[in-house]
Amino acid sequence: MKQGDLILLVSPKGKRYLRRFEPGLVLHTQEGMIRFEDVDAAGCGGAVSTHLGHAFRILRPSTYDLVKGVKRSTQIMYPKEIGYVLLKLGIGPGVRVVEAGSGSGGLTLALAWHVGETGRVYTFERREEFFALSGENLDAVGLSDRVSRFRHDIATGFLPDGRIPGDPLTDPSDADALFLDVRTPWDYLEGAAAVVRPGAPVGFLLPTVNQISELLAALEPSPFEDVEVLEILVRRYKPVPERLRPEDRMVAHTGFLVFARHGGRDVYRRPEPLPPPPPGLVQAAPEAAGTTDEDALPD
Amino acid sequence: MKQGDLILLVSPKGKRYLRRFEPGLVLHTQEGMIRFEDVDAAGCGGAVSTHLGHAFRILRPSTYDLVKGVKRSTQIMYPKEIGYVLLKLGIGPGVRVVEAGSGSGGLTLALAWHVGETGRVYTFERREEFFALSGENLDAVGLSDRVSRFRHDIATGFLPDGRIPGDPLTDPSDADALFLDVRTPWDYLEGAAAVVRPGAPVGFLLPTVNQISELLAALEPSPFEDVEVLEILVRRYKPVPERLRPEDRMVAHTGFLVFARHGGRDVYRRPEPLPPPPPGLVQAAPEAAGTTDEDALPD
Amino acid sequence: MKQGDLILLVSPKGKRYLRRFEPGLVLHTQEGMIRFEDVDAAGCGGAVSTHLGHAFRILRPSTYDLVKGVKRSTQIMYPKEIGYVLLKLGIGPGVRVVEAGSGSGGLTLALAWHVGETGRVYTFERREEFFALSGENLDAVGLSDRVSRFRHDIATGFLPDGRIPGDPLTDPSDADALFLDVRTPWDYLEGAAAVVRPGAPVGFLLPTVNQISELLAALEPSPFEDVEVLEILVRRYKPVPERLRPEDRMVAHTGFLVFARHGGRDVYRRPEPLPPPPPGLVQAAPEAAGTTDEDALPD
Amino acid sequence: MKQGDLILLVSPKGKRYLRRFEPGLVLHTQEGMIRFEDVDAAGCGGAVSTHLGHAFRILRPSTYDLVKGVKRSTQIMYPKEIGYVLLKLGIGPGVRVVEAGSGSGGLTLALAWHVGETGRVYTFERREEFFALSGENLDAVGLSDRVSRFRHDIATGFLPDGRIPGDPLTDPSDADALFLDVRTPWDYLEGAAAVVRPGAPVGFLLPTVNQISELLAALEPSPFEDVEVLEILVRRYKPVPERLRPEDRMVAHTGFLVFARHGGRDVYRRPEPLPPPPPGLVQAAPEAAGTTDEDALPD
Repeated sequence: MKQGDLILLVSPKGKRYLRRFEPGLVLHTQEGMIRFEDVDAAGCGGAVSTHLGHAFRILRPSTYDLVKGVKRSTQIMYPKEIGYVLLKLGIGPGVRVVEAGSGSGGLTLALAWHVGETGRVYTFERREEFFALSGENLDAVGLSDRVSRFRHDIATGFLPDGRIPGDPLTDPSDADALFLDVRTPWDYLEGAAAVVRPGAPVGFLLPTVNQISELLAALEPSPFEDVEVLEILVRRYKPVPERLRPEDRMVAHTGFLVFARHGGRDVYRRPEPLPPPPPGLVQAAPEAAGTTDEDALPD
Repeated sequence: MKQGDLILLVSPKGKRYLRRFEPGLVLHTQEGMIRFEDVDAAGCGGAVSTHLGHAFRILRPSTYDLVKGVKRSTQIMYPKEIGYVLLKLGIGPGVRVVEAGSGSGGLTLALAWHVGETGRVYTFERREEFFALSGENLDAVGLSDRVSRFRHDIATGFLPDGRIPGDPLTDPSDADALFLDVRTPWDYLEGAAAVVRPGAPVGFLLPTVNQISELLAALEPSPFEDVEVLEILVRRYKPVPERLRPEDRMVAHTGFLVFARHGGRDVYRRPEPLPPPPPGLVQAAPEAAGTTDEDALPD
Repeated sequence: MKQGDLILLVSPKGKRYLRRFEPGLVLHTQEGMIRFEDVDAAGCGGAVSTHLGHAFRILRPSTYDLVKGVKRSTQIMYPKEIGYVLLKLGIGPGVRVVEAGSGSGGLTLALAWHVGETGRVYTFERREEFFALSGENLDAVGLSDRVSRFRHDIATGFLPDGRIPGDPLTDPSDADALFLDVRTPWDYLEGAAAVVRPGAPVGFLLPTVNQISELLAALEPSPFEDVEVLEILVRRYKPVPERLRPEDRMVAHTGFLVFARHGGRDVYRRPEPLPPPPPGLVQAAPEAAGTTDEDALPD
Repeated sequence: MKQGDLILLVSPKGKRYLRRFEPGLVLHTQEGMIRFEDVDAAGCGGAVSTHLGHAFRILRPSTYDLVKGVKRSTQIMYPKEIGYVLLKLGIGPGVRVVEAGSGSGGLTLALAWHVGETGRVYTFERREEFFALSGENLDAVGLSDRVSRFRHDIATGFLPDGRIPGDPLTDPSDADALFLDVRTPWDYLEGAAAVVRPGAPVGFLLPTVNQISELLAALEPSPFEDVEVLEILVRRYKPVPERLRPEDRMVAHTGFLVFARHGGRDVYRRPEPLPPPPPGLVQAAPEAAGTTDEDALPD
């Protein structure tokens, strides 16, 4: 193990502790002391004994674990939404994505993980206590390097004064994607349109249908198109082979997701005609690839 | 635009064409010819006119678009499952993940996108037609470099004969994660346990409850722990601000997801006692971080 | 079989025909002629052959069959809502219930069936074509006797001019329950409060969340209390024992249900004190019986 | 109010007490004494004050209230299932329905309410404590008259020894419908087929998918046809007009419902030809009425 590696320690009762590896560290838990020399020797996937004899499992935390593990003082975004957002927004290595508000940093953390060392997350938070909290959570998982954090009110847009234009560390301009988890996103559409590149996908999370209606109304005259509204439900089952059935209860609602795309520039009109193309470069279009509709029947 | 860049062309009626940019290419569609010089000049987020005057939008495809766009001849895995799998399996830049069967390559594509240039996907497919199809789909999106494809029956395990032990291109050993979308996954648990590193998360997709029961029964004596079973539902809404309501119909079922973790090695026992730790390195464990339970009430 | 008995004939392909028994009747179908002498001889639960040799099953239609079988020219109310409404509104033998609009008569039919010969349904419909259609559907199932149908605009309340006060055939006053399936129910709350007895349960069906919000806002200052909003989803499974799984698709939305209770009169204040009660009539209250909350965990 | 009338008293905090009206009765509650003279004077829909000044509302309980109010010592059947069962089984005034096990009597109560004075419920329960409990619950709501209760093991069928053949009070033969809420319903299909009339609808409730598979397998060679499997979900909303959204959590599972129909007799074959029908009695069949499929799109 290397200094800074993320590890998840799971107690016999299932309590979980997220730490970054530090040689020689000793951790006090309710079930006794854990020495990180032992953790290193046991390795991920192994288990160590506290000095009282209780066995803790050592795991590499998944992104799911990281998201669920953030110190929270407000409602976090759930994995069931985050996973879908990653796909709809095309988040991946090298992507530059804008996010507001930072909140507890759960989504920030997942975005930071997925954009990798070559991408960047620009996250905005107006409230001091959340700005601090999200920073802590990012540090705790060692992902702060790829995140530019702005304590800034997005009412004035997503281009903070202190930025160096064109400097990817401080300037979010031409971002590849944007996500807003704020109470009144319709107030920030103009700023959102100004910070993302044309055609960029954007997303929103809102708890009430009233807010969805208001956002939809604001999206209509905006540069954003292809508006979708959806909700995601996860139902778990009791994993008993001979008595398999759903759990008694489930989360009924976390928030509604809205997705759209920046409409982009006007139709391009060629100033002068082009010469006819060489025959070898004329191709028939492949059959239309897929649809935007999740509802298409499986084959 | 650069040679090989992925672009999505959307016709006025919403039909979508996924292509890789090629200078000078001319595409024939039902609405007329599109010249890629124009596409380049318009840029992503812009739009071009066919020679018949129909405007096509030019977009950078999201991962969602790529997954939905695979040429399919069997049921693909849906974005609603893929997003969740990415998080549960900790997929991200640098991760090495094993997958079977390749099928049409939809999941392979998403995994390949997310592991980045430093990660790798090892995908196994027994059936010739799907092996070919998944290869085509990966080539179409330019992600073949990061995927080691094996035409191989996983009944003999996930360590193909031709591999060079320790060579990340050909040897999947010590993979960080594994996903099986096959009809009888219980037949491959031993092989799965042998190819992943201890503590690695694994996932399965199955269509029927009978298969879930059979898998759960096989998982009980296996090295895999922390078994979870769940299903994900997405419900869309008609995005009309003053008449907001869910769509009439929705996808009721694609498949059930099962997640587990390789149990890892035995509890590590230190051969000789360690000296007492220096005071500065003794820390109280932070409050237990999160739970594995999605059902926890939002704050 | 007796004249007027409801029978359901099901063709080999599953097409269904709802008829009332008439001795000597001959029915022409695509698969041939069916003679009702044969139907009578075969009896409910039996089957008859058309003159071309195709076997039709003879069933007594369930209420579910009747509701699904109404001739419709607008969206009907689904069984999944109707069943719940019956329970929330306390519909049963002897109950007097007001309903608007009649629409195609699907709910009217179910209410009429359940109130029996001693109850009554008072149904209001403003539009001529639906007034006629609902009448036909009620006649078709022989339930018209228990329904007082009013072609009347409920904007003027639920007490039509032509009524004879106190005559249960023409006067809906002091109804036991009320249900509104109309576009703007908030316009009729005053009339609704005036026609039901104090404490009566009432229900509403609305398709959009905007309408729900508007209704909720109107209910706040109204005499109606205990407001509940809910939706009901039914998911079917492929009934194959060894490959049991949900169907691919399902109905995602029909309408939202709102329930409330007329608040009743003020707190009763006894004009003069009562003498102390004889000991034998003093009882401890039984443990509180149940809750209004569907969410209570099963035991 | 009349002796025996069902009333529901609701405390200021929402605690509910189900009683049958008895002149002169005094009820002790935590908030003080309630005198039934006052309840009578206030009337249903009114409210009374305890001697300590707390106001209790007086309501006529709906069937929903009655079902939720049963003294339970086992999992009851929920209203969301009961309502649907009433429609699928054609329960209504005059219907004779068989039920097992009685359990706490929740379903029994709803069936008894709906079959009216001319119908009858035949309920079977093997376990003494539940036989007693269900009896109490039925007495508490004054519906015992219409219920024939049998303390009897249905392994020997639904035709108890003590019955007087043809006597509707003691003989369930030729029942119109049947519902089984038991652990191994496949053991009782033969008895079920023997007690219902041909073509009768039957229903089952089971908690696990394993049991559903086993029941489906047993239904295949049985006289029962038209097998359907489904589940019902209810999601509630916070009834706040300007902040309308679903509640955080919901019941995820109570049980799966299975419906079928007794297949009936063989195809009837007329012994001798009938004379040709008089012209006036030949009718074209009306357009096929509805379908059995809940999935049909709303118009």
